[in-house]
Amino acid sequence: MLETTIAAIRPADQTAMAAARELHGRLTKPAGSLGALEELSVRLAGLAGACPPPLPEPAAVAIFAGDHGVHAQGVSPWPQEVTGQMIGNFLAGGAVVNAFARQAGASVTVVDVGVATPLPAQPTALDPAALDPAVPRLVVASVRRGTRDFTVTAALTRDEALAAVQTGIRIADELIDAGAGILLTGDMGIGNTTPAAALIAAFTGADPLDATGRGTGIDDPTYAHKVAVVRAALARHAPDPADPLGVLAAVGGLEHAALAGLILGAAARRTPVLLDGVIAVSAALAAAAFAPDAVSAMVAGHRSAEPGATVALRHLGLDPLIDLGLRLGEGTGALLALPVVTGAVRVLHEVATFDSAGVAEK
Amino acid sequence: MLETTIAAIRPADQTAMAAARELHGRLTKPAGSLGALEELSVRLAGLAGACPPPLPEPAAVAIFAGDHGVHAQGVSPWPQEVTGQMIGNFLAGGAVVNAFARQAGASVTVVDVGVATPLPAQPTALDPAALDPAVPRLVVASVRRGTRDFTVTAALTRDEALAAVQTGIRIADELIDAGAGILLTGDMGIGNTTPAAALIAAFTGADPLDATGRGTGIDDPTYAHKVAVVRAALARHAPDPADPLGVLAAVGGLEHAALAGLILGAAARRTPVLLDGVIAVSAALAAAAFAPDAVSAMVAGHRSAEPGATVALRHLGLDPLIDLGLRLGEGTGALLALPVVTGAVRVLHEVATFDSAGVAEK
Repeated sequence: MLETTIAAIRPADQTAMAAARELHGRLTKPAGSLGALEELSVRLAGLAGACPPPLPEPAAVAIFAGDHGVHAQGVSPWPQEVTGQMIGNFLAGGAVVNAFARQAGASVTVVDVGVATPLPAQPTALDPAALDPAVPRLVVASVRRGTRDFTVTAALTRDEALAAVQTGIRIADELIDAGAGILLTGDMGIGNTTPAAALIAAFTGADPLDATGRGTGIDDPTYAHKVAVVRAALARHAPDPADPLGVLAAVGGLEHAALAGLILGAAARRTPVLLDGVIAVSAALAAAAFAPDAVSAMVAGHRSAEPGATVALRHLGLDPLIDLGLRLGEGTGALLALPVVTGAVRVLHEVATFDSAGVAEK
Repeated sequence: MLETTIAAIRPADQTAMAAARELHGRLTKPAGSLGALEELSVRLAGLAGACPPPLPEPAAVAIFAGDHGVHAQGVSPWPQEVTGQMIGNFLAGGAVVNAFARQAGASVTVVDVGVATPLPAQPTALDPAALDPAVPRLVVASVRRGTRDFTVTAALTRDEALAAVQTGIRIADELIDAGAGILLTGDMGIGNTTPAAALIAAFTGADPLDATGRGTGIDDPTYAHKVAVVRAALARHAPDPADPLGVLAAVGGLEHAALAGLILGAAARRTPVLLDGVIAVSAALAAAAFAPDAVSAMVAGHRSAEPGATVALRHLGLDPLIDLGLRLGEGTGALLALPVVTGAVRVLHEVATFDSAGVAEK
């Protein structure tokens, strides 16, 4: 399934991109006056292989949730139980991601790929009505109840990492089959900025000090310890960036692996995937290592306050749409950026040309 | 009317701001994790004098349109007729502002405060159904058919400038009376970045070179000429920043004066006003000179590519929400930022607390 998906990912369509650039020159606005929105719409034309590309509607947020053996090293001040408790909050509609999703008309699907605490029994596949923005849904696809502590051993076996990647591909396919026009990445997992930092260091070659941030907010001694934990893990496993499954297994998380799969699945279906914060971009590095052309499907929603996010975005060559110091995760930064993406595409659909509107040119 | 409006503008309510900060600490998210959105919601609580402040809905864009005598100096490559032609495009729904307003569910009101070319006869006051986002409307409140060339004489008399400011106040009142929960600034006027640069230099003391940009896109010789035009106007009129009506009359534009009035009118009604680009922030400097507490009502929508916009925002102490290199005007940058503003307020209305959701704290 992974090989088939990777094989289906193709380069951007240069003809559609040229058509979008040409159309932008005829619309009733000064050339270039929409700044980054113009190039974004051109990229999405290249992804879709059509000008204009389809409006990215409806939007579907997929929140992958997992726990982390490295939590035992004291890298987060939050108890591990919060991962499962926040899933309850997502399903009750009480989290920030729910408020932003309701506003944007986006559906929310929570996927348990490895939460440590038991969750209620739930369907293991997507409901046909999954895109209803009013009702968040849970899919249980648990690979194991949290990763192993990667300061001691590999976080996952290769088979476990592969299972999580394939779950991500499957969720992308199911959401797109249900009609989604754009996928938004979400994540939940107490401690998950530590594997994200390790993945970013492994894939970009950045020093752990530059790839590691303060997550939900930690003091100076905890931060120094977190950097040391990441550095020790990289030294122990020496992950090879040319072997993304090996990197994910050694120092990743189940939600990171599943997000890499979601991105690959979206790219294979030529559907845009709007990246949230540091967890998403660490997974995007893995997806790009599997299939470099997957970057064509990626839109960077925002610049997380986590420094590793900027390291990863630079490596991917992506500029974020929003930069407001967010560091919440869940998909919140991607949801804030969604109207910008939709607006960029809408311009190509709805704005009059100088000719059709009878407006003089300079 | 101007004096009454200024007298009604009060400082932000510190009690409501403290309540909003306290509430943020109890919501199910790490403290501070929503970055700039948290402080934005606190500011809006202070403006409304309530926590949570009302959701900023429905949104109303007011596009003030005017022409400029200084166009005769060759500061823009576009013919002056384009101002009136673009109003036709706005009313037909074909401009970028219309596409973004439809997406955001915002109404569009175009106000002719000084277009040079004749427009069709139209109502001179707002229709009661003015907030219907599907139907853009025109209000004719023309003070004169374009300003005078301020390289030769004052652009406006003080009475003309006052009439435009009062039109802006009146439109704010009418939109808020019709139910608007937030006003968005828009503008149209070929050549209007030249008076904006002059206003920014006059109010901030910036050198014309730092306050002047390339507008819709001009070549190096035209840019040098535009800077020289702004410098000559300031030297001729020596406008006094403590006399905002005098500054608007000497080197302003009718849409700039009306936007200053719109901002003052919104502030007097404790209603947020979302600023678009360089024209809006030059008008905001005038509004702040009339009434410093009006800044409490201002939200900076985006950072225009025009360098003067950044000079003005710094002077006002405002950080923009979006920074994507836009330089279109019309209200487009404000509309892109609207979901961020709404989302920031929505969090205070809809997100569960740790207590209510049964989520553990760190």
